[in-house]
Amino acid sequence: MNKHKIIILPDNIEISAEANTFLKKVLIENGVYFEFPCGGTGICRQCKLKIIKGDEEEEVLACKFKVQEDLIIKIPAREKKHNVLIDGDNRQAILDPLVKKVFLKLPPATLQDNRDDWHRITGQRGVKANLKVLQDLPGIIRKSNFSVTLVFSREEIIAVESGDTTEILFGMAFDIGTTTIAGYLLNLKTGEEIAQVSCLNPQTKYGADVISRINYASQSIEGLNDMHNEIISEVNSLIEKAVNEIGCSKEDVYAVTVAGNTAMQHLFLKIQPEYLAKAPYIPTVTGEVVLDAEDINIKINPRGKVFVFPNIAGFVGGDTAAAILAAQMDTSDNLKLLIDIGTNGEIVLGTKDRLLACSTAAGPAFEGGNITCGMRGAAGAIDHVFIDEEFKYTVIDDVSPCGIAGSGLVDAIAQLLKIGIVDKTGRLLKPKEVKNELGRKYRDRIIDIDGVLSFVLTYNTQTGKPIFISQRDIREFQLAKGAIAAGIDILLKAYGAKAEDIREVLLAGAFGNYLNYKSACRVGLIPEQLEDKTRGIGNAAGVGAKCGLLSEKEFERGAKLSQKVQYIELSSHHEFNQIFINKLDF
Amino acid sequence: MNKHKIIILPDNIEISAEANTFLKKVLIENGVYFEFPCGGTGICRQCKLKIIKGDEEEEVLACKFKVQEDLIIKIPAREKKHNVLIDGDNRQAILDPLVKKVFLKLPPATLQDNRDDWHRITGQRGVKANLKVLQDLPGIIRKSNFSVTLVFSREEIIAVESGDTTEILFGMAFDIGTTTIAGYLLNLKTGEEIAQVSCLNPQTKYGADVISRINYASQSIEGLNDMHNEIISEVNSLIEKAVNEIGCSKEDVYAVTVAGNTAMQHLFLKIQPEYLAKAPYIPTVTGEVVLDAEDINIKINPRGKVFVFPNIAGFVGGDTAAAILAAQMDTSDNLKLLIDIGTNGEIVLGTKDRLLACSTAAGPAFEGGNITCGMRGAAGAIDHVFIDEEFKYTVIDDVSPCGIAGSGLVDAIAQLLKIGIVDKTGRLLKPKEVKNELGRKYRDRIIDIDGVLSFVLTYNTQTGKPIFISQRDIREFQLAKGAIAAGIDILLKAYGAKAEDIREVLLAGAFGNYLNYKSACRVGLIPEQLEDKTRGIGNAAGVGAKCGLLSEKEFERGAKLSQKVQYIELSSHHEFNQIFINKLDF
Repeated sequence: MNKHKIIILPDNIEISAEANTFLKKVLIENGVYFEFPCGGTGICRQCKLKIIKGDEEEEVLACKFKVQEDLIIKIPAREKKHNVLIDGDNRQAILDPLVKKVFLKLPPATLQDNRDDWHRITGQRGVKANLKVLQDLPGIIRKSNFSVTLVFSREEIIAVESGDTTEILFGMAFDIGTTTIAGYLLNLKTGEEIAQVSCLNPQTKYGADVISRINYASQSIEGLNDMHNEIISEVNSLIEKAVNEIGCSKEDVYAVTVAGNTAMQHLFLKIQPEYLAKAPYIPTVTGEVVLDAEDINIKINPRGKVFVFPNIAGFVGGDTAAAILAAQMDTSDNLKLLIDIGTNGEIVLGTKDRLLACSTAAGPAFEGGNITCGMRGAAGAIDHVFIDEEFKYTVIDDVSPCGIAGSGLVDAIAQLLKIGIVDKTGRLLKPKEVKNELGRKYRDRIIDIDGVLSFVLTYNTQTGKPIFISQRDIREFQLAKGAIAAGIDILLKAYGAKAEDIREVLLAGAFGNYLNYKSACRVGLIPEQLEDKTRGIGNAAGVGAKCGLLSEKEFERGAKLSQKVQYIELSSHHEFNQIFINKLDF
Repeated sequence: MNKHKIIILPDNIEISAEANTFLKKVLIENGVYFEFPCGGTGICRQCKLKIIKGDEEEEVLACKFKVQEDLIIKIPAREKKHNVLIDGDNRQAILDPLVKKVFLKLPPATLQDNRDDWHRITGQRGVKANLKVLQDLPGIIRKSNFSVTLVFSREEIIAVESGDTTEILFGMAFDIGTTTIAGYLLNLKTGEEIAQVSCLNPQTKYGADVISRINYASQSIEGLNDMHNEIISEVNSLIEKAVNEIGCSKEDVYAVTVAGNTAMQHLFLKIQPEYLAKAPYIPTVTGEVVLDAEDINIKINPRGKVFVFPNIAGFVGGDTAAAILAAQMDTSDNLKLLIDIGTNGEIVLGTKDRLLACSTAAGPAFEGGNITCGMRGAAGAIDHVFIDEEFKYTVIDDVSPCGIAGSGLVDAIAQLLKIGIVDKTGRLLKPKEVKNELGRKYRDRIIDIDGVLSFVLTYNTQTGKPIFISQRDIREFQLAKGAIAAGIDILLKAYGAKAEDIREVLLAGAFGNYLNYKSACRVGLIPEQLEDKTRGIGNAAGVGAKCGLLSEKEFERGAKLSQKVQYIELSSHHEFNQIFINKLDF
């Protein structure tokens, strides 16, 4: 290939470029800082630079100019793109949001320059026009005498506004969980998070878990419509709430990113999720879906866009894709294990070169479901238990306890194992069977409740009734932790790695933040040797949704995950049952 | 460049191809017949062929396979694409419609093959999904056990249908004129035209001419909405009427093409046309506009598409682009002159290498407007006049006359010039001034009517009142024909050609069909030396709209005309006034 030399002023940098390459590509590849808000379509004219030829200067667009000879170019001084901090976990992104604004002062129309309005704003012919923008255009462009702000979403012009409105650019990132919806309002001009809102998922009234929601939606078109409308109107309320909090308008919000599990995302898009719940568990769509906010009745700027994260499989959704993005597993050389424990446990293992995922039907035990005294990790939940010479526990918000959270359950069982009250097979010993010295100290807590052998954590409760763990609860817990542990095992085998090869175990979600990792390892939820490598990363789906909103490139990386991540279906996996059974014991 | 040899079986053709080129490109460039219904995206899998390697055969898609070595390929036998006849003028097109259907029997979903539905139908990941199609998909794909028909519009999947519906594929082409709307229902499977419908443009109640419509629409949002809704609901009525005529359903119609003048197209798209009527006469959009039928409330298949022809300038619209396409001016080596005479006269001159267009404010004289006894070319209109020893005229539909049509006016004035009753400057002589022998025979028809000197064509009329041409009518006519003649002159000058270089003069529209070309040349409407080269081509805009509907490539050629055709603005042209004045005389 023919190469040309390019000298870049004012810094006098010399680079070389292949003949016939666009300057845009050359600059990006050589790390020369330059912005292309319209994606290099030539519309925004922001990548102007000068070609110096002796005493003469010629202004060209970097995105449209091909290198054909040795060049001296002069690039204008600009502010640097800045890194923005996204969460407490120090996750950063380069600010380059999914929607961008560019202000243009256009030459007014004259008989000599009588280009059509669309041609005038795009600067070229043949750019695909959006009907709504065309309908707005003639009035808007004249209101401010041909000074307009173009709003871009990737390479598309999604809106045209009178005058310079570049200072007003907001977006919202949503994590739509089965139980909770969380929304984050971001200033896309600065990258700052300026409001956080959340609420219970209003679909909860149709059932607490995903399957009952799917069943309701499957019964009739109305069922689907109800579920869809519930979620859309709640998202709209959260948008309203967030913008009111900081005093901007919902019209100032131009983009929304959404990350949820596969069923939630189907319902959000009003796509029938029926077949997700029936073998072979097929989603309708896994790739990213980008749509006009108006098409789905999301009340932001009427020209705004909604970006839905890709699903990976029927039970590994956009929330997992967003979590992978948040954890930067797709760009890391280090082998990482991501576990998001909820009703299902989604598990992802891999590096930038290869990512494997599976979903285990862990059941709701970790969220307190199907546990006699279980409850979500809310005020009054016992979240930690420590049994030694003293019997200690902590309660969320330090109130009188009313139940036990998933993290408390993990702790309690780990402690009961330690003091020999629960044996390796998960059997709760009868008081007289307890041999361990420390265990004997607490054996009077082992009593029969409603015909089931149970261990009482406390009698000192809100209701006066004891909070306890029954033999049945321990069995339920074993099924849940066995499923997760088997999932991890199968991913490790498929990857050809051993537990000790894992450099980091990342626990996503609230449960991961409360969990005592030592206990988790003791009960076999996480391979024991990984205790020191484990950390909670909070609401990773929400962080991923924010990363995608703040950075087009990050969203595009996220969008590729549905192709990149290899899904392993456990329900048909030939080894699953055997491994699962092996993992039931402690 | 590295070249490879390709032998094509069963015909044993040998071609050569550059390394790294897609087979699709190689086959098209070498004229090997092959269909790519999905536009070469790999989705429809219709371009399967076999690569022969010794005893082995490998099936590949021509659109996705790159030539890397010498090849022997075997292509399946197929029906040839056929030419279809579009109108009486023998205009043909290769049938390759703007929407296409492909039937696919897909492997059913299993736990082993658990691709998402969208991936299953597209055969690949990462294809951009359309929300409405996704919403239809899970039900439809299972209704027929994974045998589905995909509907493509260019490279986009616009619909998915259960089972094999490939036999059902209709489209409608519309010519939306200021006065009349004409619609043509075409079977896109066979290329046949199966119904023709037309009606008066219902906007007529807001004014007969474009300017009064624009003024109405400019007054308020409601004005624009009214005008838009009128045209949309009338188009919907015509669709209903056409499908009822042949007993199909409007859901069977998947595509609509629209060609109209710039103002009509703006109103059709609900784009404010206000600035078309004010200097510098700027349209909002000139390029093609393609939209979902639902977005503009056109009642065809709910997943159908509407394709609007590109405008060329404020007063040269999509109807002219369609007419250029119909007349194949953009592919011809021969210099052609296209004249579409209505309220405005649009004139186009050129060859495939260069096309020039202008619009002249001819006024409505050729449509009978502003002429004392003028009327449209309908029943009762005098359409031809011949004055010799006998005084003869013909009347449309052979009834008692009630007025004079544009073609009758041209004839009458040409004849009055011949017999010396009108002189070169357009003056109607007084009876005693007539010197010409033949003229003297008819000088008693020259009388004063309402204080204006007039020539009576007949007293034998429906109303009993005479039908005549007044001095004022002749002046009106001179302004109109002067404008057209000046437009032709300016285009010729800009092109650097002389009238005699023109190989064909094509008259579009009803007027062109009725017009006596000898008379048109005699009055100077068309340069005299072109009389024998002139012919009427009927409703060229309608023919162009049909060509675009039947052939994607033709529509794309049409779409390029807004870029290709150079518009010359006469109102600011430095020579226009002088040439116009020179052209007023006969």
